[in-house]
Amino acid sequence: MQLSPAIQQLIQALRILPSVGQKSAQRMAFQLLERNRDGAIELAEALQQAVAKVGHCEVCRTLSETSECSICAQVKRRDTGLLCIVETPADVLAIEQTGQFQGCYFVLMGHLSPLDGIGPEDIGLDKLAERFAQEPIQEVILATNPTVEGEATAHFIAELAEQHQIVTSRIAHGVPVGGELEYVDQATLGHAFSGRKSFLKNSS
Amino acid sequence: MQLSPAIQQLIQALRILPSVGQKSAQRMAFQLLERNRDGAIELAEALQQAVAKVGHCEVCRTLSETSECSICAQVKRRDTGLLCIVETPADVLAIEQTGQFQGCYFVLMGHLSPLDGIGPEDIGLDKLAERFAQEPIQEVILATNPTVEGEATAHFIAELAEQHQIVTSRIAHGVPVGGELEYVDQATLGHAFSGRKSFLKNSS
Repeated sequence: MQLSPAIQQLIQALRILPSVGQKSAQRMAFQLLERNRDGAIELAEALQQAVAKVGHCEVCRTLSETSECSICAQVKRRDTGLLCIVETPADVLAIEQTGQFQGCYFVLMGHLSPLDGIGPEDIGLDKLAERFAQEPIQEVILATNPTVEGEATAHFIAELAEQHQIVTSRIAHGVPVGGELEYVDQATLGHAFSGRKSFLKNSS
Repeated sequence: MQLSPAIQQLIQALRILPSVGQKSAQRMAFQLLERNRDGAIELAEALQQAVAKVGHCEVCRTLSETSECSICAQVKRRDTGLLCIVETPADVLAIEQTGQFQGCYFVLMGHLSPLDGIGPEDIGLDKLAERFAQEPIQEVILATNPTVEGEATAHFIAELAEQHQIVTSRIAHGVPVGGELEYVDQATLGHAFSGRKSFLKNSS
Protein backbone atom coordinates (compact mmCIF):
# COMPACT_ATOMS: atom_id res chain seq x y z
CA MET A 1 0.00 0.00 0.00
CA GLN A 2 1.21 3.46 -0.89
CA LEU A 3 0.53 6.09 1.74
CA SER A 4 -0.43 9.54 0.43
CA PRO A 5 2.68 11.52 -0.59
CA ALA A 6 1.88 14.27 1.97
CA ILE A 7 1.73 11.69 4.79
CA GLN A 8 4.92 10.04 3.59
CA GLN A 9 6.68 13.39 3.48
CA LEU A 10 5.49 14.19 6.99
CA ILE A 11 6.76 10.82 8.29
CA GLN A 12 10.10 11.43 6.56
CA ALA A 13 10.34 14.95 8.02
CA LEU A 14 9.54 13.75 11.56
CA ARG A 15 12.47 11.32 11.39
CA ILE A 16 14.94 14.21 11.72
CA LEU A 17 13.93 14.43 15.39
CA PRO A 18 16.41 12.70 17.71
CA SER A 19 15.52 9.06 18.58
CA VAL A 20 12.49 9.03 16.28
CA GLY A 21 12.56 6.08 13.86
CA GLN A 22 10.14 4.97 11.13
CA LYS A 23 7.54 3.47 13.51
CA SER A 24 7.50 6.42 15.93
CA ALA A 25 7.33 8.89 13.05
CA GLN A 26 4.36 6.98 11.62
CA ARG A 27 2.61 7.03 14.96
CA MET A 28 3.27 10.76 15.35
CA ALA A 29 2.00 11.55 11.85
CA PHE A 30 -1.20 9.52 12.28
CA GLN A 31 -1.82 10.95 15.76
CA LEU A 32 -1.46 14.53 14.51
CA LEU A 33 -3.62 14.00 11.42
CA GLU A 34 -6.33 12.01 13.19
CA ARG A 35 -6.61 13.87 16.46
CA ASN A 36 -4.61 17.06 16.69
CA ARG A 37 -4.50 19.10 13.51
CA ASP A 38 -4.52 22.37 15.46
CA GLY A 39 -1.50 21.14 17.39
CA ALA A 40 0.25 20.28 14.13
CA ILE A 41 -0.29 23.80 12.81
CA GLU A 42 0.93 25.26 16.10
CA LEU A 43 4.03 23.08 15.97
CA ALA A 44 4.74 24.18 12.40
CA GLU A 45 4.48 27.83 13.43
CA ALA A 46 6.62 27.34 16.54
CA LEU A 47 9.32 25.72 14.39
CA GLN A 48 9.29 28.58 11.89
CA GLN A 49 9.27 31.23 14.64
CA ALA A 50 12.13 29.59 16.52
CA VAL A 51 14.29 29.20 13.41
CA ALA A 52 13.62 32.80 12.39
CA LYS A 53 14.14 34.41 15.80
CA VAL A 54 16.68 32.34 17.72
CA GLY A 55 20.33 33.13 17.10
CA HIS A 56 23.36 33.09 19.36
CA CYS A 57 24.28 35.27 22.34
CA GLU A 58 27.18 37.50 21.27
CA VAL A 59 28.88 37.08 24.63
CA CYS A 60 28.53 33.38 25.50
CA ARG A 61 27.36 31.82 22.20
CA THR A 62 24.31 30.09 23.70
CA LEU A 63 21.00 30.04 21.81
CA SER A 64 19.22 33.35 22.37
CA GLU A 65 16.66 35.62 20.75
CA THR A 66 18.50 38.74 21.86
CA SER A 67 22.09 39.72 21.10
CA GLU A 68 22.89 39.16 24.78
CA CYS A 69 21.28 36.21 26.60
CA SER A 70 19.38 36.60 29.88
CA ILE A 71 22.38 35.39 31.90
CA CYS A 72 25.09 37.49 30.25
CA ALA A 73 22.83 40.53 30.62
CA GLN A 74 23.05 40.31 34.43
CA VAL A 75 25.95 42.51 35.63
CA LYS A 76 25.72 40.80 39.04
CA ARG A 77 26.62 37.46 37.49
CA ARG A 78 29.43 38.88 35.38
CA ASP A 79 30.88 40.53 38.48
CA THR A 80 31.46 37.14 40.15
CA GLY A 81 34.43 36.61 37.82
CA LEU A 82 33.41 32.95 37.41
CA LEU A 83 33.17 31.52 33.90
CA CYS A 84 31.80 28.03 33.36
CA ILE A 85 32.65 26.35 30.03
CA VAL A 86 30.02 23.92 28.71
CA GLU A 87 29.42 22.14 25.43
CA THR A 88 25.74 22.86 24.78
CA PRO A 89 22.84 25.16 25.79
CA ALA A 90 21.20 22.10 27.36
CA ASP A 91 24.16 21.89 29.76
CA VAL A 92 23.55 25.52 30.79
CA LEU A 93 19.93 24.64 31.53
CA ALA A 94 20.95 21.59 33.58
CA ILE A 95 23.45 23.61 35.66
CA GLU A 96 20.98 26.48 36.15
CA GLN A 97 18.45 24.01 37.51
CA THR A 98 20.83 23.08 40.34
CA GLY A 99 20.81 26.72 41.51
CA GLN A 100 24.42 26.25 42.67
CA PHE A 101 26.26 28.43 40.18
CA GLN A 102 25.96 32.22 40.11
CA GLY A 103 28.59 33.08 37.49
CA CYS A 104 28.50 33.27 33.69
CA TYR A 105 28.80 30.67 30.96
CA PHE A 106 30.65 30.17 27.73
CA VAL A 107 28.94 27.66 25.41
CA LEU A 108 31.24 25.90 22.95
CA MET A 109 28.34 24.48 20.88
CA GLY A 110 30.37 21.29 20.46
CA HIS A 111 33.85 20.03 21.33
CA LEU A 112 37.23 19.78 19.65
CA SER A 113 37.20 16.91 17.20
CA PRO A 114 40.08 17.08 14.70
CA LEU A 115 38.87 13.94 12.90
CA ASP A 116 35.58 15.69 12.06
CA GLY A 117 37.44 18.88 11.15
CA ILE A 118 36.26 20.75 14.25
CA GLY A 119 39.12 22.96 15.41
CA PRO A 120 39.47 25.65 18.11
CA GLU A 121 37.81 28.39 16.05
CA ASP A 122 34.75 26.27 15.28
CA ILE A 123 33.98 26.09 18.99
CA GLY A 124 34.66 29.81 19.54
CA LEU A 125 38.01 29.52 21.34
CA ASP A 126 39.31 32.64 19.54
CA LYS A 127 36.46 34.54 21.11
CA LEU A 128 37.12 32.89 24.48
CA ALA A 129 40.79 33.95 24.32
CA GLU A 130 39.64 37.54 23.72
CA ARG A 131 37.45 37.36 26.81
CA PHE A 132 40.34 35.92 28.85
CA ALA A 133 42.44 38.93 27.77
CA GLN A 134 39.82 41.63 28.30
CA GLU A 135 37.60 40.58 31.21
CA PRO A 136 38.60 40.27 34.88
CA ILE A 137 37.95 36.52 35.02
CA GLN A 138 39.09 34.89 38.27
CA GLU A 139 38.26 31.25 37.69
CA VAL A 140 37.37 29.12 34.69
CA ILE A 141 35.26 26.08 35.57
CA LEU A 142 35.59 23.35 32.94
CA ALA A 143 32.28 21.52 32.68
CA THR A 144 32.72 19.80 29.31
CA ASN A 145 31.47 16.21 29.13
CA PRO A 146 33.69 13.47 30.59
CA THR A 147 34.26 11.94 27.15
CA VAL A 148 37.54 11.71 25.25
CA GLU A 149 36.69 14.80 23.18
CA GLY A 150 35.34 16.68 26.20
CA GLU A 151 38.51 15.99 28.21
CA ALA A 152 40.73 17.05 25.31
CA THR A 153 38.73 20.25 24.94
CA ALA A 154 39.01 20.92 28.69
CA HIS A 155 42.81 20.48 28.53
CA PHE A 156 43.07 22.81 25.56
CA ILE A 157 41.07 25.53 27.32
CA ALA A 158 43.01 25.04 30.58
CA GLU A 159 46.24 25.79 28.71
CA LEU A 160 44.67 28.83 27.11
CA ALA A 161 43.60 30.10 30.55
CA GLU A 162 47.06 29.46 31.97
CA GLN A 163 48.55 31.78 29.35
CA HIS A 164 46.38 34.52 30.84
CA GLN A 165 47.18 33.54 34.45
CA ILE A 166 43.61 32.45 35.12
CA VAL A 167 42.87 29.67 37.64
CA THR A 168 41.05 26.67 36.15
CA SER A 169 39.03 23.91 37.81
CA ARG A 170 37.25 20.83 36.53
CA ILE A 171 33.85 19.71 37.85
CA ALA A 172 34.07 16.58 40.03
CA HIS A 173 33.44 13.17 38.50
CA GLY A 174 32.41 10.25 40.68
CA VAL A 175 29.54 8.10 41.85
CA PRO A 176 26.19 9.82 41.17
CA VAL A 177 24.23 10.75 44.29
CA GLY A 178 21.60 8.06 44.87
CA GLY A 179 23.58 5.62 42.70
CA GLU A 180 24.68 2.20 43.90
CA LEU A 181 28.35 1.27 43.64
CA GLU A 182 27.38 -2.10 42.19
CA TYR A 183 25.93 -0.50 39.08
CA VAL A 184 28.53 2.23 38.53
CA ASP A 185 30.90 1.69 35.60
CA GLN A 186 34.63 1.11 36.15
CA ALA A 187 35.84 4.45 34.77
CA THR A 188 33.49 6.41 37.04
CA LEU A 189 34.44 4.33 40.05
CA GLY A 190 38.11 4.90 39.20
CA HIS A 191 37.47 8.66 39.10
CA ALA A 192 35.60 8.42 42.41
CA PHE A 193 38.66 6.85 44.07
CA SER A 194 41.31 9.10 42.56
CA GLY A 195 39.16 12.14 43.39
CA ARG A 196 38.39 11.13 47.01
CA LYS A 197 38.32 13.84 49.68
CA SER A 198 39.21 13.93 53.37
CA PHE A 199 35.90 13.04 55.03
CA LEU A 200 35.63 14.76 58.42
CA LYS A 201 37.45 17.90 57.28
CA ASN A 202 35.09 18.22 54.37
CA SER A 203 31.88 17.69 56.29
CA SER A 204 32.71 20.19 59.03
CA MET B 1 17.29 30.68 33.94
CA GLN B 2 14.62 31.77 31.48
CA LEU B 3 14.90 30.21 28.04
CA SER B 4 14.02 32.49 25.11
CA PRO B 5 10.24 32.63 24.58
CA ALA B 6 10.58 31.22 21.04
CA ILE B 7 12.52 28.21 22.35
CA GLN B 8 10.02 27.69 25.15
CA GLN B 9 7.14 27.81 22.70
CA LEU B 10 8.87 25.29 20.47
CA ILE B 11 9.44 22.93 23.42
CA GLN B 12 5.80 23.29 24.42
CA ALA B 13 4.63 22.64 20.86
CA LEU B 14 6.81 19.52 20.52
CA ARG B 15 5.14 18.02 23.58
CA ILE B 16 1.94 17.36 21.62
CA LEU B 17 3.79 14.51 19.89
CA PRO B 18 2.96 11.11 21.39
CA SER B 19 5.39 9.93 24.11
CA VAL B 20 7.41 13.16 24.04
CA GLY B 21 7.81 14.69 27.51
CA GLN B 22 9.58 17.83 28.70
CA LYS B 23 13.13 16.40 28.49
CA SER B 24 12.71 14.86 25.04
CA ALA B 25 11.07 18.02 23.72
CA GLN B 26 13.99 20.06 25.06
CA ARG B 27 16.48 17.74 23.40
CA MET B 28 14.56 17.92 20.12
CA ALA B 29 14.36 21.72 20.20
CA PHE B 30 18.08 22.14 20.94
CA GLN B 31 19.05 19.57 18.33
CA LEU B 32 16.98 21.30 15.64
CA LEU B 33 18.20 24.80 16.51
CA GLU B 34 21.84 23.83 16.91
CA ARG B 35 22.29 21.39 14.09
CA ASN B 36 19.38 21.10 11.72
CA ARG B 37 17.57 24.33 11.00
CA ASP B 38 16.86 23.27 7.40
CA GLY B 39 15.26 20.12 8.74
CA ALA B 40 13.13 22.18 11.12
CA ILE B 41 11.86 24.31 8.24
CA GLU B 42 11.16 21.20 6.17
CA LEU B 43 9.28 19.65 9.08
CA ALA B 44 7.19 22.81 9.49
CA GLU B 45 6.30 22.75 5.80
CA ALA B 46 5.52 19.03 5.82
CA LEU B 47 3.16 19.56 8.77
CA GLN B 48 1.36 22.42 7.02
CA GLN B 49 1.13 20.52 3.72
CA ALA B 50 -0.18 17.38 5.38
CA VAL B 51 -2.82 19.24 7.40
CA ALA B 52 -3.91 21.17 4.31
CA LYS B 53 -4.00 18.25 1.87
CA VAL B 54 -4.85 15.09 3.81
CA GLY B 55 -8.52 14.37 4.34
CA HIS B 56 -10.47 11.12 4.46
CA CYS B 57 -11.22 8.58 1.76
CA GLU B 58 -14.94 8.84 0.93
CA VAL B 59 -15.26 5.08 0.64
CA CYS B 60 -13.27 3.66 3.56
CA ARG B 61 -12.63 6.73 5.77
CA THR B 62 -8.86 6.24 5.96
CA LEU B 63 -6.52 9.25 5.73
CA SER B 64 -6.07 10.16 2.06
CA GLU B 65 -5.19 13.10 -0.14
CA THR B 66 -7.65 12.01 -2.81
CA SER B 67 -11.39 11.48 -2.44
CA GLU B 68 -10.78 7.75 -2.95
CA CYS B 69 -7.69 6.15 -1.37
CA SER B 70 -5.21 4.05 -3.35
CA ILE B 71 -6.77 0.79 -2.12
CA CYS B 72 -10.43 1.66 -2.68
CA ALA B 73 -9.50 2.87 -6.16
CA GLN B 74 -8.48 -0.68 -7.21
CA VAL B 75 -11.49 -2.42 -8.78
CA LYS B 76 -9.64 -5.75 -8.45
CA ARG B 77 -9.60 -5.43 -4.67
CA ARG B 78 -13.23 -4.35 -4.47
CA ASP B 79 -14.23 -7.33 -6.60
CA THR B 80 -12.95 -9.78 -3.95
CA GLY B 81 -16.05 -8.96 -1.86
CA LEU B 82 -13.87 -8.98 1.30
CA LEU B 83 -14.15 -6.05 3.69
CA CYS B 84 -11.77 -5.77 6.64
CA ILE B 85 -12.85 -3.51 9.51
CA VAL B 86 -10.01 -1.82 11.41
CA GLU B 87 -9.76 0.99 13.95
CA THR B 88 -7.01 3.19 12.50
CA PRO B 89 -5.06 3.90 9.28
CA ALA B 90 -1.99 2.48 11.04
CA ASP B 91 -3.79 -0.87 11.24
CA VAL B 92 -4.34 -0.78 7.46
CA LEU B 93 -0.63 -0.21 7.00
CA ALA B 94 0.26 -3.09 9.32
CA ILE B 95 -2.10 -5.50 7.50
CA GLU B 96 -0.89 -4.34 4.08
CA GLN B 97 2.68 -5.09 5.12
CA THR B 98 1.79 -8.77 5.67
CA GLY B 99 0.76 -9.00 2.00
CA GLN B 100 -1.89 -11.57 3.03
CA PHE B 101 -5.06 -9.61 2.42
CA GLN B 102 -6.27 -8.62 -1.03
CA GLY B 103 -9.67 -7.13 -0.18
CA CYS B 104 -10.79 -3.66 0.90
CA TYR B 105 -10.86 -1.89 4.26
CA PHE B 106 -13.23 0.16 6.31
CA VAL B 107 -11.46 2.36 8.85
CA LEU B 108 -13.53 3.28 11.93
CA MET B 109 -11.05 5.99 13.08
CA GLY B 110 -11.73 4.86 16.65
CA HIS B 111 -14.03 2.43 18.47
CA LEU B 112 -17.41 2.55 20.21
CA SER B 113 -16.99 4.16 23.61
CA PRO B 114 -20.31 5.30 25.11
CA LEU B 115 -18.57 6.72 28.20
CA ASP B 116 -16.59 9.12 25.99
CA GLY B 117 -19.71 9.89 23.97
CA ILE B 118 -18.49 8.00 20.90
CA GLY B 119 -21.49 6.31 19.33
CA PRO B 120 -22.04 4.33 16.09
CA GLU B 121 -22.26 7.39 13.85
CA ASP B 122 -18.99 8.84 15.17
CA ILE B 123 -17.16 5.80 13.84
CA GLY B 124 -19.01 5.83 10.52
CA LEU B 125 -21.30 2.85 11.09
CA ASP B 126 -24.15 4.60 9.27
CA LYS B 127 -21.93 4.70 6.22
CA LEU B 128 -20.90 1.10 6.75
CA ALA B 129 -24.57 0.02 6.88
CA GLU B 130 -25.10 1.77 3.54
CA ARG B 131 -22.21 -0.17 2.05
CA PHE B 132 -23.60 -3.41 3.46
CA ALA B 133 -26.90 -2.63 1.72
CA GLN B 134 -25.49 -1.51 -1.62
CA GLU B 135 -22.29 -3.46 -2.30
CA PRO B 136 -21.95 -7.18 -3.01
CA ILE B 137 -19.91 -7.87 0.15
CA GLN B 138 -19.34 -11.56 0.82
CA GLU B 139 -17.40 -11.50 4.07
CA VAL B 140 -16.70 -8.94 6.75
CA ILE B 141 -13.42 -9.54 8.60
CA LEU B 142 -13.44 -7.91 12.03
CA ALA B 143 -9.90 -6.76 12.83
CA THR B 144 -10.62 -4.30 15.66
CA ASN B 145 -8.20 -4.42 18.59
CA PRO B 146 -8.67 -7.20 21.17
CA THR B 147 -9.61 -4.66 23.88
CA VAL B 148 -12.97 -4.31 25.65
CA GLU B 149 -13.99 -1.46 23.34
CA GLY B 150 -12.64 -3.21 20.25
CA GLU B 151 -14.57 -6.40 21.07
CA ALA B 152 -17.78 -4.45 21.72
CA THR B 153 -17.34 -2.64 18.40
CA ALA B 154 -16.75 -5.97 16.62
CA HIS B 155 -19.95 -7.41 18.12
CA PHE B 156 -21.94 -4.35 17.10
CA ILE B 157 -20.70 -4.56 13.50
CA ALA B 158 -21.26 -8.34 13.38
CA GLU B 159 -24.94 -7.78 14.24
CA LEU B 160 -25.19 -5.09 11.60
CA ALA B 161 -23.71 -7.45 9.02
CA GLU B 162 -26.09 -10.23 10.05
CA GLN B 163 -29.04 -7.98 9.27
CA HIS B 164 -27.75 -7.86 5.71
CA GLN B 165 -27.04 -11.63 5.60
CA ILE B 166 -23.29 -11.06 5.33
CA VAL B 167 -20.86 -13.62 6.76
CA THR B 168 -18.55 -12.22 9.47
CA SER B 169 -15.25 -13.51 10.83
CA ARG B 170 -12.87 -12.31 13.53
CA ILE B 171 -9.08 -12.40 13.14
CA ALA B 172 -7.45 -15.12 15.27
CA HIS B 173 -6.08 -14.26 18.69
CA GLY B 174 -3.45 -16.45 20.28
CA VAL B 175 0.21 -16.88 21.04
CA PRO B 176 2.32 -14.56 18.80
CA VAL B 177 4.62 -16.38 16.37
CA GLY B 178 8.10 -16.47 17.90
CA GLY B 179 6.63 -15.87 21.37
CA GLU B 180 7.29 -18.14 24.32
CA LEU B 181 4.34 -19.55 26.25
CA GLU B 182 6.00 -18.64 29.54
CA TYR B 183 5.78 -14.93 28.76
CA VAL B 184 2.32 -14.82 27.18
CA ASP B 185 -0.41 -13.24 29.32
CA GLN B 186 -3.33 -15.34 30.64
CA ALA B 187 -6.03 -13.82 28.43
CA THR B 188 -4.02 -14.49 25.26
CA LEU B 189 -3.21 -18.03 26.37
CA GLY B 190 -6.92 -18.57 27.14
CA HIS B 191 -7.77 -17.39 23.61
CA ALA B 192 -5.08 -19.66 22.18
CA PHE B 193 -6.70 -22.69 23.84
CA SER B 194 -10.31 -21.87 23.04
CA GLY B 195 -9.33 -21.10 19.44
CA ARG B 196 -7.22 -24.25 18.90
CA LYS B 197 -7.38 -26.01 15.53
CA SER B 198 -7.13 -29.62 14.41
CA PHE B 199 -3.42 -30.01 13.75
CA LEU B 200 -2.81 -32.52 10.97
CA LYS B 201 -5.91 -31.56 9.03
CA ASN B 202 -4.79 -27.96 9.07
CA SER B 203 -1.22 -28.54 8.06
CA SER B 204 -2.04 -30.73 5.09
